[in-house]
Amino acid sequence: MSTLRGVGVSPGRAAGPVLLVPDRLPEPDRGPRPADPEAEAARIRPAAEAVARRLRDRAGASAGEAAALLEVTAAMATDPALLDKAERAVAERLLPAPRAVFEAAAEFADALAAAGGYLAERVRDVHDVRDRVVAELTGAVAPGVPAPEGPSVLLARDLAPADTADLDPDLVLALVTEEGGPTGHTAILARALGIPAVVAARGVLTGTGGGARVDGASGTVELVDEAVAPQAAERTHRRWRGAGGTSDGHPVKLLANVGSAADAKSALEAGAAGSGLFRTEFCFLDAATEPSEAAQRAAYAEVLRPFAGKPVVVRTLDAGADKPLPFLESAAEPNPALGVRGLRIAFEHPGVLDRQLAAIVSAAAETGAEVSVMAPMVATPDEAAWFAERARAAGASRAGVMVETPAAALCAEELLAEVDFASIGTNDLAQYTCAADRMTGALAALNDPWQPALLRLIAALGRAAGELGKPVGVCGEAAADPALAGVLVGLGVSSLSMTAAALPAVGAALAEHALPDWQRAAEAAIGAGGAAGARERANAALRD
Amino acid sequence: MSTLRGVGVSPGRAAGPVLLVPDRLPEPDRGPRPADPEAEAARIRPAAEAVARRLRDRAGASAGEAAALLEVTAAMATDPALLDKAERAVAERLLPAPRAVFEAAAEFADALAAAGGYLAERVRDVHDVRDRVVAELTGAVAPGVPAPEGPSVLLARDLAPADTADLDPDLVLALVTEEGGPTGHTAILARALGIPAVVAARGVLTGTGGGARVDGASGTVELVDEAVAPQAAERTHRRWRGAGGTSDGHPVKLLANVGSAADAKSALEAGAAGSGLFRTEFCFLDAATEPSEAAQRAAYAEVLRPFAGKPVVVRTLDAGADKPLPFLESAAEPNPALGVRGLRIAFEHPGVLDRQLAAIVSAAAETGAEVSVMAPMVATPDEAAWFAERARAAGASRAGVMVETPAAALCAEELLAEVDFASIGTNDLAQYTCAADRMTGALAALNDPWQPALLRLIAALGRAAGELGKPVGVCGEAAADPALAGVLVGLGVSSLSMTAAALPAVGAALAEHALPDWQRAAEAAIGAGGAAGARERANAALRD
Repeated sequence: MSTLRGVGVSPGRAAGPVLLVPDRLPEPDRGPRPADPEAEAARIRPAAEAVARRLRDRAGASAGEAAALLEVTAAMATDPALLDKAERAVAERLLPAPRAVFEAAAEFADALAAAGGYLAERVRDVHDVRDRVVAELTGAVAPGVPAPEGPSVLLARDLAPADTADLDPDLVLALVTEEGGPTGHTAILARALGIPAVVAARGVLTGTGGGARVDGASGTVELVDEAVAPQAAERTHRRWRGAGGTSDGHPVKLLANVGSAADAKSALEAGAAGSGLFRTEFCFLDAATEPSEAAQRAAYAEVLRPFAGKPVVVRTLDAGADKPLPFLESAAEPNPALGVRGLRIAFEHPGVLDRQLAAIVSAAAETGAEVSVMAPMVATPDEAAWFAERARAAGASRAGVMVETPAAALCAEELLAEVDFASIGTNDLAQYTCAADRMTGALAALNDPWQPALLRLIAALGRAAGELGKPVGVCGEAAADPALAGVLVGLGVSSLSMTAAALPAVGAALAEHALPDWQRAAEAAIGAGGAAGARERANAALRD
Repeated sequence: MSTLRGVGVSPGRAAGPVLLVPDRLPEPDRGPRPADPEAEAARIRPAAEAVARRLRDRAGASAGEAAALLEVTAAMATDPALLDKAERAVAERLLPAPRAVFEAAAEFADALAAAGGYLAERVRDVHDVRDRVVAELTGAVAPGVPAPEGPSVLLARDLAPADTADLDPDLVLALVTEEGGPTGHTAILARALGIPAVVAARGVLTGTGGGARVDGASGTVELVDEAVAPQAAERTHRRWRGAGGTSDGHPVKLLANVGSAADAKSALEAGAAGSGLFRTEFCFLDAATEPSEAAQRAAYAEVLRPFAGKPVVVRTLDAGADKPLPFLESAAEPNPALGVRGLRIAFEHPGVLDRQLAAIVSAAAETGAEVSVMAPMVATPDEAAWFAERARAAGASRAGVMVETPAAALCAEELLAEVDFASIGTNDLAQYTCAADRMTGALAALNDPWQPALLRLIAALGRAAGELGKPVGVCGEAAADPALAGVLVGLGVSSLSMTAAALPAVGAALAEHALPDWQRAAEAAIGAGGAAGARERANAALRD
């Protein structure tokens, strides 16, 4: 038996036989030269289209985030730039079609990696699409998760979005990956499906043993040679009844993060009391020019309409070098995550912000949703005041800011004095606090939301919220961790906004203890020396 | 008259006639095709060598950092890859030599920019070298700072290292740049020369007025049409007598940052009591393989020898994707500043750290310097403990850590419990606290070391230092700001390590007030809502 430790990203204990996800396909050969290059090149497009069709079929059978991820991958498979490159490699360099696709994808992936940030995250998709098209051309077994014969624990190097998108939670007992980080798609989807998951578990692929026991809360993985009887994680959230609060009746708003009308529907079906984070980027991402105020109003209204009478926090445009928009002309930056992004873009383009605020305010009036507006990437009280003034001038009834920078949390009182509320983006706040890129697997442990340094910043915000009587929420992935959610409430947070699928688990966990218990757990956690210690001390405090 | 506000990076008030530094040369023409491409290509190398020779002559006439910067630029001018590219552009694409140099440099600069971080900072050098070689080939006036006819205030878009390296402080009254940031070479050299400087002063080039008044502390620049009589900044530091401390005798160690034997000499000449930051990267930068322990020992001993009997804090290797070393094989990262750098490299290559520690310990024994070792880029108490254990195992008498991440400052007590001392790297700590790249001019204000969020983190370290009786120093550029130095001491910092040339000004300023005054100023500053407010409140507290 060997015991490994990774980063637990979706809680729960499960055990069962191991199912190894095969690694990438081997590189296709450079030869022989095709006898008829034109005919060889003509094979590429139909193969890519077949791959895209199958992905779209799966998207049609899925919902919400899974469907969206599969659609993105399908679109990548038939990307004209990729296919042109591959066809040219056959015609001009006389490569066989599989090799041509392989090389075109490599070039494409390099360009994305060089662009960094948001685009670099797409490299895994390109490799996935490449392998699928190559398999289609060569008749090889398509890569991806093999169909489990029975309930299994999946071990993989990393999972492509298309792999995780349609996993069956009744057959997949737990997910363990060698690479990946706590805020990647594997983590997000595992939580959404309620499957225990551990990422960045180095060495997990070296043991090819028969069974595994996984603890998705502590990040522990036991690999054993003998067979292990399948045991699924307890689905505590099936007990949730829909009201947000602790066992002694302290109310907590349980909200969902949304970015489309489909998300809004899923959120309400899952029992969300509203949305604590409505991402507005979807309205801009495909636009070559700034969408008109009327177009924005229509797009926002579609998402807001299902929330009539319910609270929705609308975040203004969060773009930058890591999420480039053509009409904003962001320059390339050495460290896009530390660059001109979020509200910083608005300082240079205040008109874009003003038009968006106007569109949000009128969409709110039209739909009857109780809308607040919120600025991303705020660092100082001055910046918060600047945004609040513009939001009020546009007629917004409530204006708040995201707390994603340590500076904003360190000036919690002065910051809250300028606005009506704050919402903590734990993913970015963790990465800046530990100066550790959340996309870098090797640094996953530093992005663990149980890091005491992060909890201390949240505590500072909770204290300021109590003193000033203004609400502070959490809308990062930390809110979706059922064990952590109660600790956040104990630190003074009054709302939690998360991926809709996590609501039942979080709601059930929160109702297991009274507020003073959570406060004791929170106090124990912030006094710890590390993330693992914080988890253990919080658990111990709850047991006492 | 117009008043602009930039970021004050080197304090002092000065005024005088304006000297505009010309912008880059225009792009050379694509034609006509050279009649004899071979002869045309052959013109490139001698021109580059002439440029390099002149830069080396200036390096020979300079000292310390200025000489080093000029040497680097000279080496860039004759970089074989650059010259090969340019010669091929003549031979293969039949471009005239000036155009060929221009395009080769553009390609080279793009590659550096794509690499990001440390390498991206070299882009400005490439453009500088390109313009010098093109001027040499075309007979145009070489770019750079024109020779001042009399004492002047320099206004420039940005200054290349070669421009700032040999400025004459008697002729340059003040420096103002449209671009640049507070930790760039312009700021560092201006402080070293004691010249008031303001960077990121947007719009300063639009006024072509006759005179300017510059306040390098507040970052204010007044442009006037009429002539202004030259008035140099008061050289307060001429009053310093060499002892570090406040007016009531509270001792403060005034140390110098060093990276070579030449620096060590300058440090002692300037009156440094030792070194608070000995950067060891110089020993690795040109090495294709890891230098042997013996080679490292010899290199360190050369720098340590002048410090016999004096304290020196040796920082272990601070490499990473932004400062790549061939033998460490760092992968490209989307955000190198948030990547696997500093001590994080040592987790994957502990042998490299162990051999370096052994070399440092034996060099210390050989030279009689009182050596401490210190790890860069530490985020958690666990990481600090890991380093301290290895340092003690290697025989180091004192082990400490750099505090560059907000997480390390937020866990100040737990961190200090593991080590003998801590040293605050304010440049990186500021950039992570505000999540603002210190290389991005547009974000310069967020990197202002007077940001209250940064001062609050330093205060937390000062408190922990007092409680545990362990020293905390500052070795970032904030220590070189005479007005801020006393505030840092008021926050509980017991040593300040800086560029040697800043020692007299800092020593003189520190001795102007008693410790309780500095404590009052520090308390006033951390309570401010922004950097400007912190400066004003500290000044007001000192006046009362």
